[in-house]
Amino acid sequence: MVVSAMGDTTDDLLDLAGQITKDAPAREMDILLTAGERISMSLLAMAVTELGVPAHSYTGQQAGLRTDTRYGKASIVAIGPERITNAIDEGQVAIVAGFQGVNELNDVTTLGRGGSDTTAVALAAALEADVCEIFTDVDGLFTADPRIVSTARKIGHITYEETLELAANGAKILHLRAVEFARRYGVALHVRSSFSDKEGTWVTDETAPGQEETMEQPIISGVTHDRSEGKITVVDVPDVPGIAARLFEVVAGAGANIDMIVQNVSTHGTGRTDISFTLPESDGRAVLDALSDAVDLLQYSEVRWDDQIGKLSLVGAGMRSHPGVSARLFGALWEAGVNIEMISTSEIRISVVTRAEDLETAMRAVHTAFELDAEETEAVVYGGTGR
Amino acid sequence: MVVSAMGDTTDDLLDLAGQITKDAPAREMDILLTAGERISMSLLAMAVTELGVPAHSYTGQQAGLRTDTRYGKASIVAIGPERITNAIDEGQVAIVAGFQGVNELNDVTTLGRGGSDTTAVALAAALEADVCEIFTDVDGLFTADPRIVSTARKIGHITYEETLELAANGAKILHLRAVEFARRYGVALHVRSSFSDKEGTWVTDETAPGQEETMEQPIISGVTHDRSEGKITVVDVPDVPGIAARLFEVVAGAGANIDMIVQNVSTHGTGRTDISFTLPESDGRAVLDALSDAVDLLQYSEVRWDDQIGKLSLVGAGMRSHPGVSARLFGALWEAGVNIEMISTSEIRISVVTRAEDLETAMRAVHTAFELDAEETEAVVYGGTGR
Repeated sequence: MVVSAMGDTTDDLLDLAGQITKDAPAREMDILLTAGERISMSLLAMAVTELGVPAHSYTGQQAGLRTDTRYGKASIVAIGPERITNAIDEGQVAIVAGFQGVNELNDVTTLGRGGSDTTAVALAAALEADVCEIFTDVDGLFTADPRIVSTARKIGHITYEETLELAANGAKILHLRAVEFARRYGVALHVRSSFSDKEGTWVTDETAPGQEETMEQPIISGVTHDRSEGKITVVDVPDVPGIAARLFEVVAGAGANIDMIVQNVSTHGTGRTDISFTLPESDGRAVLDALSDAVDLLQYSEVRWDDQIGKLSLVGAGMRSHPGVSARLFGALWEAGVNIEMISTSEIRISVVTRAEDLETAMRAVHTAFELDAEETEAVVYGGTGR
Repeated sequence: MVVSAMGDTTDDLLDLAGQITKDAPAREMDILLTAGERISMSLLAMAVTELGVPAHSYTGQQAGLRTDTRYGKASIVAIGPERITNAIDEGQVAIVAGFQGVNELNDVTTLGRGGSDTTAVALAAALEADVCEIFTDVDGLFTADPRIVSTARKIGHITYEETLELAANGAKILHLRAVEFARRYGVALHVRSSFSDKEGTWVTDETAPGQEETMEQPIISGVTHDRSEGKITVVDVPDVPGIAARLFEVVAGAGANIDMIVQNVSTHGTGRTDISFTLPESDGRAVLDALSDAVDLLQYSEVRWDDQIGKLSLVGAGMRSHPGVSARLFGALWEAGVNIEMISTSEIRISVVTRAEDLETAMRAVHTAFELDAEETEAVVYGGTGR
């Protein structure tokens, strides 16, 4: 078992640090935050022991989880899980602290966001486990967020690739990094509820667990939404070669992760164009400041900031072999009266940006148009797992 | 710097464990409790860094504190403080988690009560430090608890031996075990306030720091009180050889620590006597049960339990060379109208048991009789250090 910190523990610890400094040394922050998993893992070991099953808890260091030295966002470099193997061989339940490892200096490191899932997947790979079960507060991955699309269905099986696209585009259940790790090492994931024994969602490559044959792919696996982005439009930049490169150097210098980019065709015969891009809202301030400082370099007339956008993404490995998906998507949005502001695609995904207020309408229309609706609404239980 | 957990952290963690089980595995309890020092040490490192002084925090394991495997009450077996030495050589403030070490299995252990003081003293010994400063919520050791005896004076210098007697008899500032460690390794202690720069109390052997000559000893260093004990009287046991041995075997079997013992002279010509002893109130229930089970063996007529007792102890290395101390003590108590129920002595201590309600009167009378009163009352600040 790999555990994360309980409830609000991590936020509470961050809050304590925030009362002392806005600029905590990363090494100390990692020592601080790893206290959360130590508390949850030892309490869980007590609880399992109390049930009559022998259980021991292990820190990342004790579980042999070695990382590089990038405090706060360390990468796993090796796992030597001898103590865990021995514990399991002795019939113990081995409970391991997620999210943490130890570097070559014998200092504690944390793996950053999604770290506990990543620990679980990495450990499953090192132990050559049949499956890594991810227990969460919902029954599995759904074709859409059931809080918005009440007819959403639980997905029985989905590929790593699709899951990566879902996770990268707003689905909150699995962390991107854990899925990447699972894909790289071929670890089958079973995402399921902590509150029931129901079968959840299997995430594997295109072969379903226990089957030799490649399954038939559904065209669309799911629809995600993301309200966490904002849009910046840089108006009237000179439409000359290299202007986009210069613009995005400025943006990158502000440390922002760009998502979608649209460069308009130069329409006014003025030799000028508009460039729009989306980015996490939290990066907006820094990028606006950087652009403001670069007005002489970029020679734009105006910068516009819009945080009232929503992004809808349609994900499905079957898209590759089924033409017409985008036509059906745009048709459904048009019928629902939803205007599309930006579009981007990958091999197995189409994303559109809409007004934030239209996002839920769009979700339901698209979910229905691709025949994802369940015949009966499934009961979904939400809890708080602290993950 | 050696830190303990903040405020109520340890109690809060114990409470969490208590919600799960009344019988937590000691190994897991140690992992749980050591989270408290990890939180305080990393926050302190952030705070010191914020002041512009480089600081790193170190766990017991990182500080090279190796212990035996007795979880919850481990003993230090070796210290290899290379990381600490290196950190100090580099000009860093090294902040070490108190109370914890690592055993030969690479498992975390705790040193039990007073563990943070013990870590500090042990580390000071390993680093051959000039002094180990113990920061607490009062200005030092006092001739009596200033909350009871308002005229109590801060002690400037006191020997290890006297400090051990004070700590063993109710003084709460220093933990017995840390003082024993300091004595064994000759570590000078300076007990002082966290809230001021005032000189505190030096604890050394009979040579004061910086002096070659043995100082003149004051006759009495201090008076302590202890309300945490109860008294058991076993009435009418046969006054035959070996009865006390049998009785105290029964008591030891219940796991109790006996303090004082009084066996009355057989007065009734009945060949029977009474045996009284004091012990921590918290051990009372277990001993009463054990005695009740042993009524056939011990053939007593009755067992009495009295938790309304108080103990006063007079401690001073000068007692050895000054006769008349007990006469002056009993005289002072007689004049104050305080009845003495039990007496015990060591080479440098006299303890008496009184009614609990007489204890404060007794403290003040004895403090005055031995000329310990300050000419002016010193201001004493109490805080909450969580130690």
